Order: sequence, then structure tokens, then C-alpha cells
Amino acid sequence: MKQNNIITLTTDFGLSDPFVGIMKGVMFGINPSIKFIDISHLIEPQNIMQAYYTLKYSYKYFPSGTIHMAVVDPGVGSERRPILIESKDYFFIGPDNGIFSFIFENEPSANVIELTEKKFFLPSLSQTFHGRDIFASVAGWLSSDVKPYEFGIPINNPVILKTPEPDMGKEKISGEVIHIDRFGNLITNISETQFHSFVSERNGKAKIKIKNLTIPSLCKSYSEANRLKPSSIFNSWGLLEIFIKNGDASKKLKTKKGNRVIIAMSAKQ
Amino acid sequence: MKQNNIITLTTDFGLSDPFVGIMKGVMFGINPSIKFIDISHLIEPQNIMQAYYTLKYSYKYFPSGTIHMAVVDPGVGSERRPILIESKDYFFIGPDNGIFSFIFENEPSANVIELTEKKFFLPSLSQTFHGRDIFASVAGWLSSDVKPYEFGIPINNPVILKTPEPDMGKEKISGEVIHIDRFGNLITNISETQFHSFVSERNGKAKIKIKNLTIPSLCKSYSEANRLKPSSIFNSWGLLEIFIKNGDASKKLKTKKGNRVIIAMSAKQ
Amino acid sequence: MKQNNIITLTTDFGLSDPFVGIMKGVMFGINPSIKFIDISHLIEPQNIMQAYYTLKYSYKYFPSGTIHMAVVDPGVGSERRPILIESKDYFFIGPDNGIFSFIFENEPSANVIELTEKKFFLPSLSQTFHGRDIFASVAGWLSSDVKPYEFGIPINNPVILKTPEPDMGKEKISGEVIHIDRFGNLITNISETQFHSFVSERNGKAKIKIKNLTIPSLCKSYSEANRLKPSSIFNSWGLLEIFIKNGDASKKLKTKKGNRVIIAMSAKQ
Repeated sequence: MKQNNIITLTTDFGLSDPFVGIMKGVMFGINPSIKFIDISHLIEPQNIMQAYYTLKYSYKYFPSGTIHMAVVDPGVGSERRPILIESKDYFFIGPDNGIFSFIFENEPSANVIELTEKKFFLPSLSQTFHGRDIFASVAGWLSSDVKPYEFGIPINNPVILKTPEPDMGKEKISGEVIHIDRFGNLITNISETQFHSFVSERNGKAKIKIKNLTIPSLCKSYSEANRLKPSSIFNSWGLLEIFIKNGDASKKLKTKKGNRVIIAMSAKQ
Repeated sequence: MKQNNIITLTTDFGLSDPFVGIMKGVMFGINPSIKFIDISHLIEPQNIMQAYYTLKYSYKYFPSGTIHMAVVDPGVGSERRPILIESKDYFFIGPDNGIFSFIFENEPSANVIELTEKKFFLPSLSQTFHGRDIFASVAGWLSSDVKPYEFGIPINNPVILKTPEPDMGKEKISGEVIHIDRFGNLITNISETQFHSFVSERNGKAKIKIKNLTIPSLCKSYSEANRLKPSSIFNSWGLLEIFIKNGDASKKLKTKKGNRVIIAMSAKQ
Repeated sequence: MKQNNIITLTTDFGLSDPFVGIMKGVMFGINPSIKFIDISHLIEPQNIMQAYYTLKYSYKYFPSGTIHMAVVDPGVGSERRPILIESKDYFFIGPDNGIFSFIFENEPSANVIELTEKKFFLPSLSQTFHGRDIFASVAGWLSSDVKPYEFGIPINNPVILKTPEPDMGKEKISGEVIHIDRFGNLITNISETQFHSFVSERNGKAKIKIKNLTIPSLCKSYSEANRLKPSSIFNSWGLLEIFIKNGDASKKLKTKKGNRVIIAMSAKQ
């Protein structure tokens, strides 16, 4: 695969400080033809798992050859390794803390390089901002046609993030809320595939429960839902989502990330 | 008019989630020469009218041929139609919910197409994210020189949003606050033209009132105002605006959208 | 120096309103090959000093010829002058209120032009939005190869912002918190150079104090710090920074901008 000149950015740097602009300046200094796409800079500080989910459900929508850079990096300045990953269709640049480990679910043999070639870093490294000094600089050079192997040495033990998987039991699926979006929708880790395979092998009607509340309906669109009651839907990431029509389910149900979501069958009546 | 490769985006998707980045990825996959300009992604959830005002006072500042995409779409997945509008100078893509209806105030005969040609959509449609599956994809193809009529069928009954117009009475103008900006300035729906035409036909001095408070002065600049008192000015959209110099009028006057603003004449003394 | 087609933007316009998008539309109308980089639009309303620091520590990371536009402009519509500055490597466009005065610390003779040539402004000037009517328009033309001297007349008395410098005393350095970043890190105005020169000429061990709290350690990385106690580090701007590992020092220490930070020597024991 050949890199294109699109670089996406996912960070916890926020939008008030100049950190993101500085990284783009460094990259433009190396390759002024880069096209930047901001995925999110409002990842919660140090929340590697939020960045993992954000990228996991985004990266495939970009053209082949896109460079995905992610910097949520509580280990900056320590021994944690800076890495570049080359998958079948994309490049990933960031700290080796599991932020990209969804790649290995599909491509266990994706090529991982530890970034060791200092000639591709900024001349002097700070202790606190490798997004600027290492990752932006390397992304700039990668987009300029430097080959992945030139940046360092292959490694075969990247950090793998442990993410919560739903428990597929005999009697129930036990999942959890993994993300709350801008609308207050509760996104669970239960996929449409898991839901349907559970239901199709059992009798009765599926009941969806969160915090001892039974969600009455599984809708085909937000707008068909009853405005007063929480509903559920399979969302654009293929995941079960609990929502309130034109409302904020997270606030109204006082829910937070990690809350359990249960699917079980009730006897047909 | 020929489309240029500028696409503006106005949504209620927020800046934390990857929704906006995903849409840009889809568009770059179709046409990598697009130039994106974000107008706002912080429209209040489902607030079609806020998006309407945001675009109404912005769209003319872009070069002819710009594609304005707006996705505030509480009806996603329902029967609401996805549309493309071709006005004299611009293209508009989004849901048919009135978000673009300011166009018809100036150009009643602007060309409206219902998007029906599925070959210009993503291969599989989600129930919740037509911004990605329909609007981004269509915008990408439109910017790639597909002609408007190729996307679907002309319609002549687009949804028209009913927006609050000031009541031009004999004794007074009765308007309202339609937007509160980042600075806490209160933007009303009373235009400079309406104000001057009312005043020029009457004797006395115009008084501006909000919440039983009389605004003492109509300024020529923010900085000439008294720092301790609310003032008014005609703003960059040609609308009457109430502000407090270097302060937040919305907070200090405890005002919100929809509050009435009255213009009346007091006898000269 | 020749201008490149990169324009950075630093404003207090926020991200909800369409102000920034409108400015970019105006610039694209003049020169569609511009590449925009947003540095920050979340400068606190009217906070010229925050914009000054934001740009001071950012501008050098951009390629030579970049145009830095900054609009934090409480004096809009008054007699304050609109200016263009040409330094050795960059251009700066904005109001003459000190927002760019860090330039003169290094380059006292940088070329300053008052923007007087109305043919480079939008045809009609509003009273409230010179970011659109003057600065965006001038930046667009400057990026299109109009020469700096064509925009107006040289001036030699630009406004200089008075910023707090640390007091380098015999017994102590007395500095202050000048910025609190997204992570809650407290950035002081005490530079690494000032710190080391103070310490190297004295006996004992340096103690760092804020609000009568002694910061126990000066770290080489965030991650080596004790998670329960505030620590300090020299940050990516070369400034002393007080932080709490994976936490928000500003909230936990109830600190705000302007709080004093003291460096003094304690006798070796």
C-alpha cells in the first residue's frame, strides 16, 4: 500500500490550547500537501480506551493509504515505545499503549515498527509533547514517501488493550455501556450480530434491560420511538444503542459508561 | 453554475464523537480534492432553527459553487426526504426539514431534488447516520461533477420552516432574541432596515426594551459603550444586537432565546 | 520572505457560531488555494494576553512564510488600528492591541503596516466584525501575493502588551501561573533557563512553592511522578509546569491564573 497525503488526528489535547495546531505546523513544514482531518481532540484526558473506540469505528471510512495519528499518551517521556503500524489499508502512528490494538483483531500480523530513527524526529525532544516532537514529525515524513521500515525496527509484542466484551451466557447477554455520545445516546458493546444470534437460537421475546429498567422497544429509526420512553436501536457502528427520542438518555436515566446492559428472553405469552 | 470543490458542514454532531471525521473520510474517498470548511458542529441537538440561522447568515460569504451540507436530522431513518437544492450560486445538501428554507425567501424557484438514486449512497444504509451514508456520499459525488438531476427527482414542495418574524405594529416593533452568541450578545430578529423604516416615519426617539429594561444607547462600536450598562448595536448580520461591553449580556440580563425585544418611540422632550 | 498559502487562525470566536467559517469563506473567495490551520478559537472572550501566549509558543512551528491571523478584538469599530506585521519568517494580521508584541522581543525592527487601503477590505464594513471585513480579506490578498507595503502605511509605534515577567530576586524567583491547559496543568512564566541560572549560582536545593504548598519533585516525565502529589516539570514551551499525574492540578490545588509561584533555595541537609 502506498500512503496518501491524508492524515487524521485523534487526541486528548482539547481545542483551547495550541497543541493540535502546533502538530499540524510541524507536519506542514515537512510536507505542505498534507490534508488533515480531525477525528476528535476531545478524548477525555488520558482515556486510551475512548480513543481506541473512536478510531475503531472510524478508520475504515477513510481512503486506503490514510495515516491515522492518535496521541493519548499518559506515558509520554517514559519507556513506552512510539510506534508505526502498517495494516493492509492504513498506517497508524502513536504511542504503544493499546490505542490501536483493534487492528490486530482483524490483522494479527500487521507490521509494527518501533520508531527509533531520530533523524525523523524534531531535533530536540521535550519531556512532555512527543505528539509534536516525534509523532507529527514521523507522520510528516511518512506522508512524504519515507518507507515504514526506515523509521525503526520491527517489533512483535505491541501492547494489546483489554476492552470489555459482552458475556454471552446461556440465559442472557451481559454487556455494558462503552460510550455516551453528544446526544446522550448510550452505546453498548453488544453487536447486532451477537444480539440476533442469541435471539434466533432461543424462544420468546428479547428483553433489553439497563439499571433494572426494561427498554420497551427496538426501533428502526429514532423518529418512530415514543418520545417519553427510552428505546433502543442498532446504530451506525452496528452496536445496540439505548436512546430517548429528541432527548438525552444519559441524563434522564442517570447512566454512565460501564453500566451493565442485559439481554434476556421472556417467555412468549 | 458549476460546483467548486469547497464543502461546508453544519451539524449538531458535536466535536467529541468521530461523526464529522467519518463524513469527511467518506467524501475524501470519493473526491480527495475537496476542501472542507466547518461552519459549526455545535448546533444544539435537533435544533433545526439554530442551523437555519447559522447558515442563513453565512452561506453568501463563500465562493460561488460552494456545496453547503447541513445535517441536523431528528427525522433520520423515517420518511423525511433527503434533498439537494441548487440555487443561483450554491448547492445545499441535507434533510428536507426546513433547514435550508431561507433560500426560498430570495429564490422561490430554486431547484429542489429528492435524493433517490441509491448508486450515489453508501452501499448499506444505517438507520441512524444518513450524514455518512447519504449526505456525505452525495456531496462527494456532486463535488466530482455529477449533475444535480442525476441524483433523483425534482420536487416542488420542500418543507418550509416557520421562523419568528418581528411584528411591525403602529406603536411598536415587537421582535425577539433569536440567537445568543459566544460572547453572550443577544441577537434579535429586528433588522437595521426595519428599525430605520419604523423610526423614520415617526416622531420622537426610539426606545429599545428587553424584559422591561430600557437599553440606553445605540452604539457605533462595542468599545464606545458604557461598560456598566447594556447597549445595542447593529451587528455584522444587519440585525439589532444587545450587548454589554466586555461582558456577557445573556448572563447579566438573565436572557434567553425567545425573550421579547420591543422598539417604541418616546415623545421628544 | 515570500508568503506561503498557509494561514493560521487564533480567535475568541468560539466554535458554536459561524464566525470562523465565514472568515474562511471570505478568504477562499479571494484565494481558493489557502490552507487553514486553526490554532484556537476558544481564547477567553476579549483575553488578549491568552491569545498572545497561545501564538508566542506556536508561531515558530509553522513553515516560513505562514500568515498568522489573530482576532481578539475588543476595540473593533473604534480607533484601534488594524495592522500587518512582517517579521523575518512570518506575517501577522490582526488588531493593534499587543496581541503580536512577542515579535518585537526578538525582532524590534519588524516591519509594521497600518492597514489603510480599503480596496483590500470587503466593500462594506460592519461595526462589529472586522475579522471578516478587514482581516480575512487582507489575509486572502496577502496570500495572493499582494506585497505588504501595498496594504497601507508603515508605523513605528505598535501597541506593546505588558506581560508578567518573573521577579528574579536575590533570595527567590517570584513568578506566576500564566496558563492552565486542558489537562489542568499549571504553566508558569518561569523558564528553564531562568530556573537553572538561579539554582546554579546558589547553594542548597531548589524548592518550588505555590499557595504555600511545596512541590516535592522536579520530574523528567509525567509518568515518573507520584500519582498522589503535585509535581513539576519543564514543559514543551521551556517553562516550569506544575502537574498532578493523570489528574487535574488546577482543580485539586484550587489554583487559577495569576497565582504566585516561588523558587527558593533550602539549605542542604
